[in-house]
Amino acid sequence: MTLETVSLNKSYGGMQGVYRHTSRETATSMTFSVYIPAHQDGAKLPVVWYLSGLTCTHANVTEKGEYRRACAELGLIFVAPDTSPRGEAVPGDPAGAYDFGLGAGFYVDATQAPFSKNYRMWSYVTKELPETIIANFPVDPARQSIMGHSMGGHGALTVALSHPARYRAATAFSPIVAPSEVPWGTKALGGYLGSSKQAWRKHDAVALIEDGARYSEFLVDVGDADPFLKEQLRPDLLERACSDAGIPLTLRLQKGYDHSYYFVSTFMADHLRWHAERLKA
Amino acid sequence: MTLETVSLNKSYGGMQGVYRHTSRETATSMTFSVYIPAHQDGAKLPVVWYLSGLTCTHANVTEKGEYRRACAELGLIFVAPDTSPRGEAVPGDPAGAYDFGLGAGFYVDATQAPFSKNYRMWSYVTKELPETIIANFPVDPARQSIMGHSMGGHGALTVALSHPARYRAATAFSPIVAPSEVPWGTKALGGYLGSSKQAWRKHDAVALIEDGARYSEFLVDVGDADPFLKEQLRPDLLERACSDAGIPLTLRLQKGYDHSYYFVSTFMADHLRWHAERLKA
Repeated sequence: MTLETVSLNKSYGGMQGVYRHTSRETATSMTFSVYIPAHQDGAKLPVVWYLSGLTCTHANVTEKGEYRRACAELGLIFVAPDTSPRGEAVPGDPAGAYDFGLGAGFYVDATQAPFSKNYRMWSYVTKELPETIIANFPVDPARQSIMGHSMGGHGALTVALSHPARYRAATAFSPIVAPSEVPWGTKALGGYLGSSKQAWRKHDAVALIEDGARYSEFLVDVGDADPFLKEQLRPDLLERACSDAGIPLTLRLQKGYDHSYYFVSTFMADHLRWHAERLKA
Repeated sequence: MTLETVSLNKSYGGMQGVYRHTSRETATSMTFSVYIPAHQDGAKLPVVWYLSGLTCTHANVTEKGEYRRACAELGLIFVAPDTSPRGEAVPGDPAGAYDFGLGAGFYVDATQAPFSKNYRMWSYVTKELPETIIANFPVDPARQSIMGHSMGGHGALTVALSHPARYRAATAFSPIVAPSEVPWGTKALGGYLGSSKQAWRKHDAVALIEDGARYSEFLVDVGDADPFLKEQLRPDLLERACSDAGIPLTLRLQKGYDHSYYFVSTFMADHLRWHAERLKA
């Protein structure tokens, strides 16, 4: 597997890289970023996977997420993939909307034409990208954790619930927790997976928990001034599901914060400390 | 003076605003950002002015500068103006180059047609914008300091040397220190101020010092992997001028760092602590 280095910049004593490769899963070129803190030669470091939200590429969190200081202090590798396949040959939303298609892969393997050829973000983020990162960077595969924002919070929760032994921590900013029940989610899951709602359940954190999936504990931050809080995010549904299932959930409604990276960056170091405690335990 | 609020987002407990106003100096609309940390009602806070580099708007440092955490902790207001007038009616570089005209005002009041009507960035950042900020935000005018990056480092040094009593601290990342002697500077100063090099001297930090301007002390960080180090930045010229004039200069050549915000953000908190110590002394 060949990685093309797009950029490499020293930051907080480590190296922030951006790389491109040809993905077997999406059948496109995919770009991702990796921050490697300063470390001793030969050391293998824990890795935090960060899944981004609607419209984002790797660049949003890489430029605005303010994670490097904490990753440098805590000795964490931080990986941020794109949110969908891209390219002229990749089908998008027929109406050009922001919430389906390009920039909106929802971390599923699409089963519906014309999306099923390229939209394989589940396999990309749970199989191909981990293989690529482990083969090319000083990662300890026994110490992985996952986090995400909005659509990427949905991704982080569903990936963790589906691989509870692989990820030692899972946290989210402003996640979509029950896509089967909200407009963004029903549009995306319907488009990628078809109209049978049964097929949606393994890509819906609340439904996964209802169906018996378990995870050690979650940390979730949501701003109470988030314009998507009540219609799209619905943290109350995750709170009820976790309560019913006995999954410890630290849900923090942050006063005055919205959905932006001004919010995410504020609590990024908190989340990374949460990850580090569990990755180093 | 009317300010239009472009955006306002809570971050690190304070508010990150972006505003637009009609400038009397540039005869255009100008956009700037202001971060106000949480503070007691009625309190007046110290303010740090940040001048940006070539091609930048207020947005680069606002999104990538990672200053909010330190400003929140230290109780500093942070203001970032644009780097030039903008708009269809504003003349730019005849060849469309990045280093003159739009995004490249060099913090001077142009005397040459067709630039003299709009390119009045010296008066904008030293007069109009301070008046606007002091009238609209909880700033203590007795506690101001200034910093900048690249072309904005040049701006910060020349503004501080010209107003040593107003700014209690002045620091720079990767500054252009002697524009009269380097390609970026000779193009810009020649274009805005004409061919007489005497007129350039009050916009050249090294020349200002040679001509008798003094300042309490400077902190300057430059990356030793900065591609502009030897041809455009020339920190050695500032080092010699400060040494000859007895101005204390803390010049740090940072190993492996380049010219980007990955570098600036790494040392931003260091600079803000330097400012806070002097603003609160």
